Amino acid sequence: MNGKLVKTIREAISLSGLRDGMTVSFHHHLRNGDYVLNQVMAEIAALGIRDLTVSASSLFDTHQPLTDHIRSGVVTGIQTNYMAAGIGREISRGILGKPVEFRTHGARASDIASGQAPIDVAFIAAPSADHMGNCSGKFGKSACGSLGYAYPDAMYAKKVVVITDNLVPYPLQGWSIPETNVDYVVPVEAIGNPAGIVSGTTRITRDPVGLVMASYAARVIEHSGLLKDGFSFQTGAGGASLAAADFLKKIMLEKGVQGSFGLGGITGYMVDMLQAGCFQSLLDVQCFDLKAVESIRSDPRHQEISALHYAGPSARSAVVDSLDVVILGATEIDTAFNVNVHTDSNGYIMGGSGGHSDTAAGAKLAMIIAPLFRARLPIVTDHVTCVSTPGRDIDVLVTQGGIAVNPKNGELRQRLLDAGLPIVEIQELKARAEGITGAPKRLPRGGREVARVLCRDGGQLDSIYHTPEEAE
Amino acid sequence: MNGKLVKTIREAISLSGLRDGMTVSFHHHLRNGDYVLNQVMAEIAALGIRDLTVSASSLFDTHQPLTDHIRSGVVTGIQTNYMAAGIGREISRGILGKPVEFRTHGARASDIASGQAPIDVAFIAAPSADHMGNCSGKFGKSACGSLGYAYPDAMYAKKVVVITDNLVPYPLQGWSIPETNVDYVVPVEAIGNPAGIVSGTTRITRDPVGLVMASYAARVIEHSGLLKDGFSFQTGAGGASLAAADFLKKIMLEKGVQGSFGLGGITGYMVDMLQAGCFQSLLDVQCFDLKAVESIRSDPRHQEISALHYAGPSARSAVVDSLDVVILGATEIDTAFNVNVHTDSNGYIMGGSGGHSDTAAGAKLAMIIAPLFRARLPIVTDHVTCVSTPGRDIDVLVTQGGIAVNPKNGELRQRLLDAGLPIVEIQELKARAEGITGAPKRLPRGGREVARVLCRDGGQLDSIYHTPEEAE
Repeated sequence: MNGKLVKTIREAISLSGLRDGMTVSFHHHLRNGDYVLNQVMAEIAALGIRDLTVSASSLFDTHQPLTDHIRSGVVTGIQTNYMAAGIGREISRGILGKPVEFRTHGARASDIASGQAPIDVAFIAAPSADHMGNCSGKFGKSACGSLGYAYPDAMYAKKVVVITDNLVPYPLQGWSIPETNVDYVVPVEAIGNPAGIVSGTTRITRDPVGLVMASYAARVIEHSGLLKDGFSFQTGAGGASLAAADFLKKIMLEKGVQGSFGLGGITGYMVDMLQAGCFQSLLDVQCFDLKAVESIRSDPRHQEISALHYAGPSARSAVVDSLDVVILGATEIDTAFNVNVHTDSNGYIMGGSGGHSDTAAGAKLAMIIAPLFRARLPIVTDHVTCVSTPGRDIDVLVTQGGIAVNPKNGELRQRLLDAGLPIVEIQELKARAEGITGAPKRLPRGGREVARVLCRDGGQLDSIYHTPEEAE
Repeated sequence: MNGKLVKTIREAISLSGLRDGMTVSFHHHLRNGDYVLNQVMAEIAALGIRDLTVSASSLFDTHQPLTDHIRSGVVTGIQTNYMAAGIGREISRGILGKPVEFRTHGARASDIASGQAPIDVAFIAAPSADHMGNCSGKFGKSACGSLGYAYPDAMYAKKVVVITDNLVPYPLQGWSIPETNVDYVVPVEAIGNPAGIVSGTTRITRDPVGLVMASYAARVIEHSGLLKDGFSFQTGAGGASLAAADFLKKIMLEKGVQGSFGLGGITGYMVDMLQAGCFQSLLDVQCFDLKAVESIRSDPRHQEISALHYAGPSARSAVVDSLDVVILGATEIDTAFNVNVHTDSNGYIMGGSGGHSDTAAGAKLAMIIAPLFRARLPIVTDHVTCVSTPGRDIDVLVTQGGIAVNPKNGELRQRLLDAGLPIVEIQELKARAEGITGAPKRLPRGGREVARVLCRDGGQLDSIYHTPEEAE
C-alpha cells in the first residue's frame, strides 16, 4: 500500500472528492509564515470549486488572498478562533455574506469532535511527514514544534491531506498525527517561510508602563494564595506578559516554589522557567519561538498536547481545568469585567478569543493585564464593543494605574490589600483614563451582523456588526 | 475540578452507571499478572449486575474466575482476540450460552472505533496515572510498557475508569492515554503481579528442531528479495521465532542491511536489533519482557503505537500495511495454507488470532514456523479444525523437514530453490509427518457453536464448536 503519495496539491484536492458547498480546514502553527492555506485555496479556485466554508484555527494577514476568494464566491463561510487585523478589517466592511463563526480554541476542538462543526477535507501543513502520513511539527526546515491545533482536524475530517516540505523515510519517529487518519501526502518545495513561522526570540517589554504592570501582575500572583508547590501557569507572548513571567520566575526561585506545569502557547521564557526548575513540565499546544521548538524536540518534559487536551469543553477534563493562573490581554474591558479581544474600539475585527475564554473559564485566577489607554483610547469602558470572555470568568484587571478585583472575589481582594498592592475600583480606573484621554465617542454600530462569537460551552455570546466607512 | 478520584473500584462502577446487559472492557498488557479484570468483575458481581458482555483484548488463565461469573449469569457474552487454554477449555465445553466473538487485534480496534463493538464502561489498568486520568504503562512498580491495546477502549467507551497502583502528581509526564477521555481514577494497592506481567527475559530456543527451523526461516528472509535497506520485521515471542530473529540479526549485520522498523509485541531481542542498528525504530503495541519495557521508557526510537495504528483494517493505513516480513506460529496448517491458532487439534480453544491475521494480511512475506508434529500430532492437515488466518495470506511454511511455499508465490519459490533451500510441497510435509505419527483420527465435532472467528475486514471466517467430553 503506497497509494497515499500524490504529486501536487491539485491532485490531492481532486482525489479528496472536494465539491461545492463543503468545508475545508487549516491549522495555524505556521502563523504568519504559512504558505499552505494560500496554496490550497488557489488550487481550489483554479479547479472551479465554489461556496466553501474555511475552518481555520486562526487566520493571519499572510492569508489576505482569502479575501479575493470571498469576493469571487469560492469562499462563502469562515469559522475561526482568531483573525488578524488585515483580514478582519475587510470582514468588518461586510465582504462576506454569512457571519464569521468565532470559536475558542477549545470549543473548535470539541465542536469538530462532536460533529457540530464537521470538516470535509483537512489540509495539514506538516514540517515532517513520511509517505504514509505519520507527521510532526518538530523536525524539518519549517519546524513549528507542536501541532496541537491540527489534531481535531486530523481525527475527525472525512478526508485528510498532509502537505510537507520534509518527506522522511517510513516510519517518521516522534509523530504527532498518525497515518491512521491520513488519506494523502503531498510533498512540496516549502510549506512556509521560516522567518514568519516563529520569531527568533520573543522579547520582554522595556516600556516602563509595561514593566509596572508586569511587576503588579507578579505580585498579585505572589499574594493570591496560589503560588505554592504544584503551581501552574499560562501567559501569552506579549511583552508585558513575558515581563510578568520573568518577575514571577524570580519570585518562584527565591521562595523555592516547585510548580507543576506551564501551559499554552509556549515561549522561550516558559522554557527558561522549566529549565530553572520552576515547573516539572510544559504542556504545549503551540510554539511561539525557536527556543520553544528546540525544547519540545529535545526535552521530554516539554510535551505536545492536542487542542482538546488543552481546552476542550466537551473533554472529560482538559488541562485548563487544572490551571491555577493565566495572564491574558484585552483590547477593552468593561466595568462588569467583560473582555473584548475580537475588535478594536472602532469595532473592526482584529483578533479573537483563541484560548482566552477557555483559560479564563478554567483557571483559578484569570488576570487581565492592560494599560489604562492605548492610542488615546481608554481600555476600561462601560460596555465592551464585543464580549469575547464574560466578566464572570475574569478575576483581576492589572493596569499601570492600579489593580481592580472583580467584586465576586472578596477574599482575593483582601489578600492583595494586605500585601499593600494598589487596589482600586474598576470604575475608578475608567474615570482616571478618561480624565487623561477624554471620554471616547461611541461609534455608530452597523446594522448587519458580520461575525458571531460563540460561547465555549454552546450558544452565542455576542455579535460583531458591519462597521461603516465613516468609522475610520 | 477534582472529581475524578474515587476511593474504590465499587464506587467507580456505581458512578459509571453500569447496568445489566452492558459491555465492559479490559486490556491485556498485564498479561498473566493482571489483577484488574478479576477485581472489577468480583465487584460487579457483588453489586448484583448481570448479563454483561466482557470485551477483553485477550484473556489469560489468571482470569479463570471469569468462568464462575459465566456460570452465575453475571457474564453472558465474551469478545476477545485471544483466550488461554484454561478458560478456553471451559468455553469449549459449552459453559457460555452465546458464542464467543473472536476478533483480531486490528479488527477489535476498528470495530470499537466504528461502533460495531461498542463499550459501555472501559476499565484501564494503568501502571501510572495522575488524578485527572492521564496515564501510562511505562512507569511504576507494575510497569508493562506500551498500552497500545487500551487506546480504542479509552477513545470510544462511553465511560472510562482508570485503575492505578502508582498515582503521580498532575500532570503525568509521557502519558499514553490523555485525561480528555477518562471519567474516574481509582488508586489501588496493586494492579498486578510484576512476575506475571512481563517475563524477566524471553529466551531463544535451545531445542535442535527449533534451531533448524529458525535457521531456515532466517535464510528464507535472506533470499526473499526483501532483505535490503528499509526492511521491516515482526516476530512473536516463541523460542524458535526468537532464534530466527537472532539468526536474522547476524545476517543483517554481516550484510550491512539498514532496516526501517521492528513491529509488534516487542521482546528484548528486538531491542537488541534496534541497538545493534538493524532498525531505525521499534513500533510497540505491547511489551513482552522487562528489556522492552526499559527500552520504551528510555529510547525515543522505541515508540508506542495504538492497536488501530498497529493493525486496524479501517484505518487509512496501519503499520502492518508497510510490513515486509512476519514470522508467525500455528497449531495446525492445512494443505491450502489455512492456519489455526484458535484451537488445539482436539478442537479445544487455546489461543486466538491476536495480530496473526492482521500481520499476515499486511506483510509482503507471512511465514509460518512450526514443527512437523507436536505431541505425536502432525501440524499439517487436510483441513484445519478452525481457520484463524486464511491461506491466501500465508506465503511460506517452515518446518524442520523442509520449506513449503504457497503455490501463489512462484517467484519466491524459485528464489528459495536458487538459494539451495529445501523446498518441498506442503502435501509432502503432511505425508512425512503422518509417516512418523500415523494419520490422526478426526474427532467428532460437537453440534453447538461456542465461538465465532470474525474476519478482520468483516464477516465470519469460521466457527468453533462444542467439544464433547470424549475428545479428552
